[in-house]
Amino acid sequence: MGALQVAIVTLFPELFGPFLETSFVGRARSGGQLQVHLEALRQHGLGKHRTVDDTPYGGGAGMVMRADCVVAAIEAAEAALGARTTRVLLTPQGRRLDQAGAAELAARPALTFVCGRYEGFDERVRAFVDAELSLGDFVLTGGEIPAMAVLEAVVRLLPGVLGNPESATRETFAAACDGLLEHAQYTRPPEFRGLGVPEVLLSGDHAKIRAYRQQDALDRTRARRPELLAAGGRRRE
Amino acid sequence: MGALQVAIVTLFPELFGPFLETSFVGRARSGGQLQVHLEALRQHGLGKHRTVDDTPYGGGAGMVMRADCVVAAIEAAEAALGARTTRVLLTPQGRRLDQAGAAELAARPALTFVCGRYEGFDERVRAFVDAELSLGDFVLTGGEIPAMAVLEAVVRLLPGVLGNPESATRETFAAACDGLLEHAQYTRPPEFRGLGVPEVLLSGDHAKIRAYRQQDALDRTRARRPELLAAGGRRRE
Repeated sequence: MGALQVAIVTLFPELFGPFLETSFVGRARSGGQLQVHLEALRQHGLGKHRTVDDTPYGGGAGMVMRADCVVAAIEAAEAALGARTTRVLLTPQGRRLDQAGAAELAARPALTFVCGRYEGFDERVRAFVDAELSLGDFVLTGGEIPAMAVLEAVVRLLPGVLGNPESATRETFAAACDGLLEHAQYTRPPEFRGLGVPEVLLSGDHAKIRAYRQQDALDRTRARRPELLAAGGRRRE
Repeated sequence: MGALQVAIVTLFPELFGPFLETSFVGRARSGGQLQVHLEALRQHGLGKHRTVDDTPYGGGAGMVMRADCVVAAIEAAEAALGARTTRVLLTPQGRRLDQAGAAELAARPALTFVCGRYEGFDERVRAFVDAELSLGDFVLTGGEIPAMAVLEAVVRLLPGVLGNPESATRETFAAACDGLLEHAQYTRPPEFRGLGVPEVLLSGDHAKIRAYRQQDALDRTRARRPELLAAGGRRRE
């Protein structure tokens, strides 16, 4: 299986430098599971100042990213990769990223992440992308950090990227797998500033430990995310 | 009003370099609205290898971040800032970040973001933090990207950081303000690959433009986020 090919269209390619070098993302690149192309949107700007935005038709505050510049950058990125990619627009109007969405993207051979500045894209950009993703109901000024979040969630699902295959699914946020938050975890020291460790975890009784953890996961989900229990098998937004 | 003081506790301080230099985050720092201290968690690790994690009591996959190392790092960060901060743990078990949460943090004088690796924190860390925030129901491997998302959402709310004060609230994601997604935006060119601009936006009739945009925002919200309309004034999770 070849590397996942990823292009990132952005006004700030320099933001991605250490992210692409560090930790498992860096290892995925050097290990051949991931190939990344950064496409500087500014290269596709107009005039002496390489302008990529303009005032909105009909008036209003803020600047709007021009469709022609954004689409030119997407197409240049795909030419560089030599592939038609699944094009993902990062926008707060998109589908909220969840683990199922990350898994869908991880199964594609090539992705382009299109990062705008959040004053808004010209609506016609939407005709040239395949998916729109959001991190949630809060305002950012650019799509770069959301693109990193999506890419990190995707890359860790690629075969061979994480050393321990079990860790890819059994991590703190087990709700992605079985609808519950993960149980509490403890490690050394056994006492820290007067706080100890539940006796059962030190007992060596694996059946008891399993039962304790199941109950803890349930209690914790009820306290923090009761809607996960209410939802049952229903797909969460 | 003084600068917002922010500490970031992380195993990967280098990930934050360009993020803290670029765009409005960089300008907020040079403009005196934001002061950032990076606290390398590794400095508080144990032994020759500066270990900060250990195997979980009771068994199981993955490593758990030690409470003693994490809390020592938080306290060192606060000593460096000279302030008790609002301590924010980035964890998928936390409250989901939304615009109200970002605004709450922007009103605090000092924040510490605690980034773990997502195999999990020792449960006792939770006794030493003030808030837990999540970006959503997907699995990342570290808290660094979520910390950047929260910090970006917070910094743009600080007085004087964005040039145009109107832009801070009237941006693509207006749902944070009035419960609707923002209407479509268009800018030059008037035609792009056969796609035009709605006539009304070129009409100069401001009452009609306003009505068109209100209807478009409603239609778009109904199509993409119907639960926002169903929720009415109810607080969204």
